Amino acid sequence: MQSPTFSETPRPFLTWQRILDWAQEHYRVRSFNKDERIPARPGLLYLVQRGAIRLVGTAQVSATASQLTSRRVNRTPEEAFLGFVGAGQPFEIVAQSPFTLQAYAHVDQTSVVWMYWHDLDNWPHFRREVLDAFRYQHQRKLLWLSALGQRRTIDRLLGFLTLLVEEYGEPSFSPEDPEVLRGYCLPFPLTHAQIGSAIGSTRVTVTRLMGKLRQRNLLITQGDNLICLPAESVNIAKR
Amino acid sequence: MQSPTFSETPRPFLTWQRILDWAQEHYRVRSFNKDERIPARPGLLYLVQRGAIRLVGTAQVSATASQLTSRRVNRTPEEAFLGFVGAGQPFEIVAQSPFTLQAYAHVDQTSVVWMYWHDLDNWPHFRREVLDAFRYQHQRKLLWLSALGQRRTIDRLLGFLTLLVEEYGEPSFSPEDPEVLRGYCLPFPLTHAQIGSAIGSTRVTVTRLMGKLRQRNLLITQGDNLICLPAESVNIAKR
Repeated sequence: MQSPTFSETPRPFLTWQRILDWAQEHYRVRSFNKDERIPARPGLLYLVQRGAIRLVGTAQVSATASQLTSRRVNRTPEEAFLGFVGAGQPFEIVAQSPFTLQAYAHVDQTSVVWMYWHDLDNWPHFRREVLDAFRYQHQRKLLWLSALGQRRTIDRLLGFLTLLVEEYGEPSFSPEDPEVLRGYCLPFPLTHAQIGSAIGSTRVTVTRLMGKLRQRNLLITQGDNLICLPAESVNIAKR
Repeated sequence: MQSPTFSETPRPFLTWQRILDWAQEHYRVRSFNKDERIPARPGLLYLVQRGAIRLVGTAQVSATASQLTSRRVNRTPEEAFLGFVGAGQPFEIVAQSPFTLQAYAHVDQTSVVWMYWHDLDNWPHFRREVLDAFRYQHQRKLLWLSALGQRRTIDRLLGFLTLLVEEYGEPSFSPEDPEVLRGYCLPFPLTHAQIGSAIGSTRVTVTRLMGKLRQRNLLITQGDNLICLPAESVNIAKR
């Protein structure tokens, strides 16, 4: 990857600390438990101070709605997992009918700072960092879309997991020999239903295909269902 | 949509003109014919001056590669359509194994300016516009991913077309009565294979499902295979 991730950017620590202090003073920071929804609104800017949030998109599109209006009303909107936003990263919410984005705390003790864009007038350098972070997130989403463009579900799945582990994975060492790098693992669980929602498939199919990937040693699962990829298939040497 | 599109932003015309003049002087602008590849490299910044480019992602992921190495070599990588970038908009290329992005002129006489990021040091206000444009493109991609998260291919297709027409559609009036707004059309053709590549489906399936959408009056096709949506199903009143 050409661009460093947001948290890798040499952050002017003082600015970040000053922003956190400012957020405390102005009651602009709040903590959330796992799976709690962040009451985020379009037009505002959010920064993850600690933990991680999960972005979820809801589509109310239904190609059958015009014929079966009653069914439309009863139909639960499908939620799609759109990615994580980790500590130090900004996020925002967009809403455009028929799509809605929502943010949930993905782990306990996730804390989020919110601000208006014009609050950043005080920290022009930090605004540029935030915009660069969105630029980087955009690049990642283009790669993600490349993965999803593949026709076979198993290829979409492997491409999707590879991108996630490359971005968020943490090194995992062999239990027998702690000097041997076994692979890289996502630091938090992701359910098969969530994965299915991201790649346009179902929980059942994801479970089946992940079994196949494991058989082929393209995937490792560890402990609490953490998703890991073998070290040789992950391109994060630069981190 | 909260954010205006890049080309709707009240652009300081003088800056844009100055950048184009600068690009001419420094041989930083080039014209391309339809479907010609833009020789874009990661790390540089590109601006579409005229026409439109098509972003395409290639994935070399193959879940069967480890078993069938010979097949992997022969296998044509799948290309996914990742969106358009229209006049006035910036784009950049990312490459991260196993994914590669490429840009193609989508229409004849597409002209593209290229620069280094540090060239923007002369135009700090413009840099902010460019970063805001990427921020907006990121928001659109999140909506796009919401559309692709739907399980049924026909819903993915309709969601995808709705987003494209909302962003790029031009009003189309009834041939009988030019006062009657019929719908909004994409200003350039998009093949069924390209659509399929974006939504993880095939040309054949897209053709079949587009027929269904037409029957249900959720889609109109016009003249040269231009894709149109009925006025009432498009949310671009604000444009």
